Amino acid sequence: MHDIALIGAGRIGKIHAANLAANPRLRLTRVVDPFPEAAAAVAAQYGARVSTIEEALADAAIAGVVVASSTDTHLPYSLAAAEAGKAIFCEKPLDQDLGRARESAARFAALGARLFLAFNRRFDPNFAALQARLAGGAVGALESLHIISHDPAPPPVDYVKVSGGIFKDMVIHDFDMARWLLGEEVTEVFASASVLVDPAIGEAGDADTAKTILRTASGRMCVISSSRRSGYGYDQRIEAFGSKGMIRAQNQLETTVETWGENGAAADRFQNFFLDRYAVAYAREADHFADILDGGTPPLVDFRDGVAALALAEAAAQSAQTGERVLL
Amino acid sequence: MHDIALIGAGRIGKIHAANLAANPRLRLTRVVDPFPEAAAAVAAQYGARVSTIEEALADAAIAGVVVASSTDTHLPYSLAAAEAGKAIFCEKPLDQDLGRARESAARFAALGARLFLAFNRRFDPNFAALQARLAGGAVGALESLHIISHDPAPPPVDYVKVSGGIFKDMVIHDFDMARWLLGEEVTEVFASASVLVDPAIGEAGDADTAKTILRTASGRMCVISSSRRSGYGYDQRIEAFGSKGMIRAQNQLETTVETWGENGAAADRFQNFFLDRYAVAYAREADHFADILDGGTPPLVDFRDGVAALALAEAAAQSAQTGERVLL
Amino acid sequence: MHDIALIGAGRIGKIHAANLAANPRLRLTRVVDPFPEAAAAVAAQYGARVSTIEEALADAAIAGVVVASSTDTHLPYSLAAAEAGKAIFCEKPLDQDLGRARESAARFAALGARLFLAFNRRFDPNFAALQARLAGGAVGALESLHIISHDPAPPPVDYVKVSGGIFKDMVIHDFDMARWLLGEEVTEVFASASVLVDPAIGEAGDADTAKTILRTASGRMCVISSSRRSGYGYDQRIEAFGSKGMIRAQNQLETTVETWGENGAAADRFQNFFLDRYAVAYAREADHFADILDGGTPPLVDFRDGVAALALAEAAAQSAQTGERVLL
Amino acid sequence: MHDIALIGAGRIGKIHAANLAANPRLRLTRVVDPFPEAAAAVAAQYGARVSTIEEALADAAIAGVVVASSTDTHLPYSLAAAEAGKAIFCEKPLDQDLGRARESAARFAALGARLFLAFNRRFDPNFAALQARLAGGAVGALESLHIISHDPAPPPVDYVKVSGGIFKDMVIHDFDMARWLLGEEVTEVFASASVLVDPAIGEAGDADTAKTILRTASGRMCVISSSRRSGYGYDQRIEAFGSKGMIRAQNQLETTVETWGENGAAADRFQNFFLDRYAVAYAREADHFADILDGGTPPLVDFRDGVAALALAEAAAQSAQTGERVLL
Repeated sequence: MHDIALIGAGRIGKIHAANLAANPRLRLTRVVDPFPEAAAAVAAQYGARVSTIEEALADAAIAGVVVASSTDTHLPYSLAAAEAGKAIFCEKPLDQDLGRARESAARFAALGARLFLAFNRRFDPNFAALQARLAGGAVGALESLHIISHDPAPPPVDYVKVSGGIFKDMVIHDFDMARWLLGEEVTEVFASASVLVDPAIGEAGDADTAKTILRTASGRMCVISSSRRSGYGYDQRIEAFGSKGMIRAQNQLETTVETWGENGAAADRFQNFFLDRYAVAYAREADHFADILDGGTPPLVDFRDGVAALALAEAAAQSAQTGERVLL
Repeated sequence: MHDIALIGAGRIGKIHAANLAANPRLRLTRVVDPFPEAAAAVAAQYGARVSTIEEALADAAIAGVVVASSTDTHLPYSLAAAEAGKAIFCEKPLDQDLGRARESAARFAALGARLFLAFNRRFDPNFAALQARLAGGAVGALESLHIISHDPAPPPVDYVKVSGGIFKDMVIHDFDMARWLLGEEVTEVFASASVLVDPAIGEAGDADTAKTILRTASGRMCVISSSRRSGYGYDQRIEAFGSKGMIRAQNQLETTVETWGENGAAADRFQNFFLDRYAVAYAREADHFADILDGGTPPLVDFRDGVAALALAEAAAQSAQTGERVLL
Repeated sequence: MHDIALIGAGRIGKIHAANLAANPRLRLTRVVDPFPEAAAAVAAQYGARVSTIEEALADAAIAGVVVASSTDTHLPYSLAAAEAGKAIFCEKPLDQDLGRARESAARFAALGARLFLAFNRRFDPNFAALQARLAGGAVGALESLHIISHDPAPPPVDYVKVSGGIFKDMVIHDFDMARWLLGEEVTEVFASASVLVDPAIGEAGDADTAKTILRTASGRMCVISSSRRSGYGYDQRIEAFGSKGMIRAQNQLETTVETWGENGAAADRFQNFFLDRYAVAYAREADHFADILDGGTPPLVDFRDGVAALALAEAAAQSAQTGERVLL
Repeated sequence: MHDIALIGAGRIGKIHAANLAANPRLRLTRVVDPFPEAAAAVAAQYGARVSTIEEALADAAIAGVVVASSTDTHLPYSLAAAEAGKAIFCEKPLDQDLGRARESAARFAALGARLFLAFNRRFDPNFAALQARLAGGAVGALESLHIISHDPAPPPVDYVKVSGGIFKDMVIHDFDMARWLLGEEVTEVFASASVLVDPAIGEAGDADTAKTILRTASGRMCVISSSRRSGYGYDQRIEAFGSKGMIRAQNQLETTVETWGENGAAADRFQNFFLDRYAVAYAREADHFADILDGGTPPLVDFRDGVAALALAEAAAQSAQTGERVLL
């Protein structure tokens, strides 16, 4: 049983709190949040206590820290936790600034930090099964990938303005998936981006629709399709083409009910909210953190992966702006 | 190249004429029909000539006769053709009267008649593939079958009155499929029938909805679901449950197009007209007749099968009326 | 927040304990089990205390009792809880003996008992959505139903011997579903049963495969397909045919991953263990019990439904034995 | 009834001959081929006569000419037919050389030629239904397209050497589909191509795998995925993303049979040979030619479309070689 401190009691922090509480190997004992009521509510629900960061890091009983605070605090809190010798479960992204992320990565490496960067999609049972079968040779040697990741609806424009842009805020998940599945580092990036959903997003200097091609040294390719608004739900799919076949993960439907009428057959909607779609993935993240704390398992994703995904996001943003491919 | 005479130039006769003409091993040379214009139109289209039955059967060049005339003439024309030594392709059913069918079967047998009774579903590529895999052991030993056969809309009540009833007119196809797939003769029949679609069908002394259970000596079972009107299309499906799994044939859709909207995903309608649904089956029937004429192949379905299916239909009708199972 | 006592700390009792603990409106405070270690383990995990039945029923703070003990104790414990004025969440079945169940139902009725009989399938999101849409007229007036319920593998023969037979032990779930969906009481039952899976089940006086037809006064029909062993997984499907279309609930797959190779496309297995397949249903049962305790909701299923399902099971068993339909 | 001359009696010429013969509005009367035996065989089968091109074009009864000869002869034969005042059904591509195609287009335009350039995929019922629904607003305003077009197996390397390269030989179909569906001209092309299937294709100066992004002035985008070998069949799919949803055309399966076993559910292969997959499309091409000859319908695709698709192919080939996007 490992004692855990949670930093951040907002929407995603509450998800992690519930999963920590339900995990038989983890115990949530301290909750930190700048809003005392938010911290108190989560602490009360799970029998933990409200703390400052300093108290949490000074508590020798605390084995791991979950950093689920605002994006700009991910790096400082994670570094502080690393210096205190705690294992870290850090929400994505590591940071929005590539230079800062690289510097910090050097420090994490020097500290021998056990930092798990929580890219949730790697823990989705569908994508994880796809990855395992692909790695197991189910379709021979991988040749190319298609990743579709369309959000149901765009975030508020005020969020868009501070988001870092569509590539760093949204497509970064897909860059991480691509790196995980391609089995080789990406050497070229080309991206094309448009404002088709909401002109206000364009006025804020961002795009809402993008297609990106990644390429590796051996010529493997990955296409990523990104949209801030789908019109049909939260579309999260992957197709992997290999020398012997194709493997794909489809969307999860809300129910298995079909209605057949004179106009055809209608299936149910697919799960439309990321917290529903990835509910199992979040629970499996907590379990992976328990594995790390048990000592046998290195993080499946760490700060190096965070830096690499951010570098791809920056390259894609540059390509979309200049119209030229970016070599890495 | 075998010369063929067609008896009956109505809707189904025209289908057979087109398939005979397109088959490189068959040549349609004579067309017989009580309506001279109908015969002339089909004959003109395919370069055949209008004939009487007597002329057709007297023509030594005619190798095979396709009997696609009205149901009450199937037996007399087929017998006449058998006596003339022609191979016969007879539309289903052999007859509506079980006693008469049995007597005639004895005569066909005595004549050594090559009579192909055209139960079209055996020639559907989907059902034929299901049968072949089932027979090949794809799901181990067969334990039970579900056959769903729902028509899009009921026939006119005037037709219902002379149809012989739902079991002899419609479910007879499914009795033939059941016999083909079960691999054992049926020994018990129980049927339950209702009037749920159109009270006029009930007033005509018939039912429009039925569920039938067939049982073989070894305890294999088959459920047949029948309806004169589906509300959603021409529903033609089979599921076969075996000791090692299940195999099923689904409906064919008009196109593969799906539309995904905020309410879910909609697939296209399935093929809704029996001449569309079984277009390939009819063409394959003509090819099977060519195989028979070439000499190497006995009919896949013959008069014995016609009698056996009719006996099941009569037993089911009796069971539905009395509420008691019928032992065969 | 309602305090709950759990009677029975075995496999299904543990499922209910976890769902009670996770439900914000319920608090598990007492655990009863003839095996002290079993009771202690569950009590410790959720901060409850080990009790006797007498203590639990005497505790005025206890608002509801969950009866998850062995089948033969369902009735006496539920009656004792009803007499103590507690709301009851009783695992199915109410009892295996129809006479005893009917007598008890009279006592529950006289006591005004709030007894929720936990037929889990009514709480499955797929079947519940099907029922809601059917009741909402999505396919017009219901005409017939097909329920497929095939277990992955048969239980041990020792269990079969005390199970009450396939109809009371297994098909009873489907009788309850049929009653829920048909919208009318069943007036006729015909069943045909075979021993196709394991001769030892036949030697124990039971069958392992069955097809049942239910019929209502207005002529609606329901076919139930039952098997103790599928060869392909836990097959739980429903199709409902109405005047305007068809609605069906399909099986849930383990993942959405498909592999396309030269022989075709392969989808994942469907959820194969009833505790996986119905995990959400069990959680929703706890929530329904909280609704009942809150006072606004009568049980969706109660002792009357338990008696009615048992009566159908007895009729089906009789029909399978005699070969005659049973009128109710 | 329009008399037709066929130029080219090879594989694709035979397909067109059969469809011309089966079409009640067309009559195949002359067959031209450099190999007299090939011409004679086709002519005999359909009651036509073997001719020279000169004879065919001089025959006033000939209303239309089908050009199904080798690629390098498409332009000269089509021009000759246009000069003779015949309507033309020309197999794709118009030519492999963009300059020559452009010059010829000017001559076709000056002659007022009725030239139908037979891009078969526009006539596939699935893609045609997708196009019609998209144009009808089924998913709102189009934002982006994904076209997947993977061949089952690569052609012989000798063919590759004279094919004009993957973009002109294979992806040209998809450039035409993109133009048809996008509803706007393409202004930018970026392509990335690899040799992943067969090193001999690379040695021949070509690629076997490619991803292409097209972009229109308003920012609509289209991704095309191309492979000379799939490992799983002839993969022909389109997804169109609009402001209100998504519409897609999937692959057609050989049969609707599914086998469910302990490892999951297996569907049949999809149609694997282009002549099977597009059999209906070829028949519909003949029907479209009959519409053109009847006078009411301009060609759905003409020489201008042939030039435009070729221009995209050339731009994509250039982009793949230079690594830079090409502006049109």
